[in-house]
Amino acid sequence: MTNSITILFNIRYPIVQGGMIWCSGWKLASAVSNAGGLGLIGAGSMRPEVLETHIKKCKAATSKPFGVNVPLLHQQTDELIKIIVHEKIKIVFTSAGNPKKYTSFLKKNGITVVHVVANKKFALKAIEAGVEAIVVEGFEAGGHNGYEETTTMVMIPAIRRICPIPLIAAGGIATGNAIFASMSLGANGVQIGSRFVASTESSAHKNFKQKIVVAEDGDTILSLKQLVPVRLLKNDFFTKIKKAELSGAKKSELIRLLGKERAKKGMFEGDTTEGELEIGQVSEIIDNILPVSEIIEQLIAEFNRTAKRMNGMML
Amino acid sequence: MTNSITILFNIRYPIVQGGMIWCSGWKLASAVSNAGGLGLIGAGSMRPEVLETHIKKCKAATSKPFGVNVPLLHQQTDELIKIIVHEKIKIVFTSAGNPKKYTSFLKKNGITVVHVVANKKFALKAIEAGVEAIVVEGFEAGGHNGYEETTTMVMIPAIRRICPIPLIAAGGIATGNAIFASMSLGANGVQIGSRFVASTESSAHKNFKQKIVVAEDGDTILSLKQLVPVRLLKNDFFTKIKKAELSGAKKSELIRLLGKERAKKGMFEGDTTEGELEIGQVSEIIDNILPVSEIIEQLIAEFNRTAKRMNGMML
Repeated sequence: MTNSITILFNIRYPIVQGGMIWCSGWKLASAVSNAGGLGLIGAGSMRPEVLETHIKKCKAATSKPFGVNVPLLHQQTDELIKIIVHEKIKIVFTSAGNPKKYTSFLKKNGITVVHVVANKKFALKAIEAGVEAIVVEGFEAGGHNGYEETTTMVMIPAIRRICPIPLIAAGGIATGNAIFASMSLGANGVQIGSRFVASTESSAHKNFKQKIVVAEDGDTILSLKQLVPVRLLKNDFFTKIKKAELSGAKKSELIRLLGKERAKKGMFEGDTTEGELEIGQVSEIIDNILPVSEIIEQLIAEFNRTAKRMNGMML
Repeated sequence: MTNSITILFNIRYPIVQGGMIWCSGWKLASAVSNAGGLGLIGAGSMRPEVLETHIKKCKAATSKPFGVNVPLLHQQTDELIKIIVHEKIKIVFTSAGNPKKYTSFLKKNGITVVHVVANKKFALKAIEAGVEAIVVEGFEAGGHNGYEETTTMVMIPAIRRICPIPLIAAGGIATGNAIFASMSLGANGVQIGSRFVASTESSAHKNFKQKIVVAEDGDTILSLKQLVPVRLLKNDFFTKIKKAELSGAKKSELIRLLGKERAKKGMFEGDTTEGELEIGQVSEIIDNILPVSEIIEQLIAEFNRTAKRMNGMML
């Protein structure tokens, strides 16, 4: 199958690996690209020189297309973008910021630009800014999310109606039937995060990966809504935040409680008690840590089984 | 098409109309049943004698199967159940309570019993209680919901894996492509609420229906999480609750703020400022008030278009 997403990125399957802080370095990105998806280096947790190294290693590890995800709230965005252009990266996913700021500059440099949104307002802004596709991320997704709390099931059809460019669904997708469902809802492809965090090649700490494997219904929550909403696994750190919120804590107190480098501590260093463990609701159905090639194989097999099951169904 | 749901209820389409307080009387239920779905009288907002009248009128208005939804937190559940048995109702959906309490009694009286759940724990309880199908309702659904906040996209595949009986998806479904997507995820049918509230035949106040038509992304929210989580349209009443919560209000204060008959005031009497307006996120894509027959026709046409579009798609 080819469609607007496989053509846009020149990839085999319309499956993008989400660019995630502390979890998606060159190993994960190159593994996904080698398996026929689109791998993304997550620059959000990288200093510019670290990104440069990851790009060079990724180039050496795959001849297939890959990209870089740049959260625009990164304090050194300008430097990251400079390196991306210098290294002749062809695909950039921007997120967490105004898509108008870099889109034309990147496009002038021959880069395909995609922007990640979590609501309709930013979808319209991104389309207006001239991006070539958007990722639409539902409430169930891990990490930073929107204030609207709109889920994938609702947001994909809602944004499809107003979106003339390719649309990539994200949030709650870890199986082939969810890929098929997302495309039924109107998406042209999917972005998958959590499933790839629990892979051999992700740079997540093994303690964090293990927490994903055992996670059950209700174990993640969209938290810190007074600051920037973020979906994470419930742990001691979350309990402290929750307790403060229920006592009427102000923003400043929450910022103090959050402190610095919580995400690194949890996801990269493996402190699952006091660290911030950003992951999606779909952890509930992730039961193992697998090599990326096997994950992709399973996704494709499940997708095709679902397609067969739904084939010819008419009401 | 026939499947486990159409056979279980002896209906044409695997589409159930959710039993909703103040919105789903005999007019709505009979209209849905006449159009080939399964209509449900929502007994949650009815006194026993009112339910009796609705059942009699529904029988007169349709020769097709219909059912009654009984939220088990209703203070007169015993009396409601007595009337249901006496009136020889054949299908009962229970919700908001322990499925063990009435299931065997109802089944002994020849009634098909379905239980509504919003998490995996209660899905297992309902299966164990011997119900014949479950409704699995995601975070995006209107009205009362689960503490886990699990969305339809995540919960359907998660519960499908452990559910040997027919599964009905609910939450975020107002279009034919969402029905198709839900069935791709493993559901055998769907329950639709919000779309039917905005119908000619629903007993919702016209002011409330109009609010659904104009609702946009982010206009509903899961609120009152310290009491029983409920999804409603944001309005002045919600703003007061939110403000109290942010100041660290205790349960007792929230109960006082909520007061009595808020839902009736909002949904049935049309006070959209001070009333409680329970409705799903999917209001965002509901743009008109239509007769039930047209709604069902559109759903089927959209489903079949989606089926055609997805036909033969293989990765």
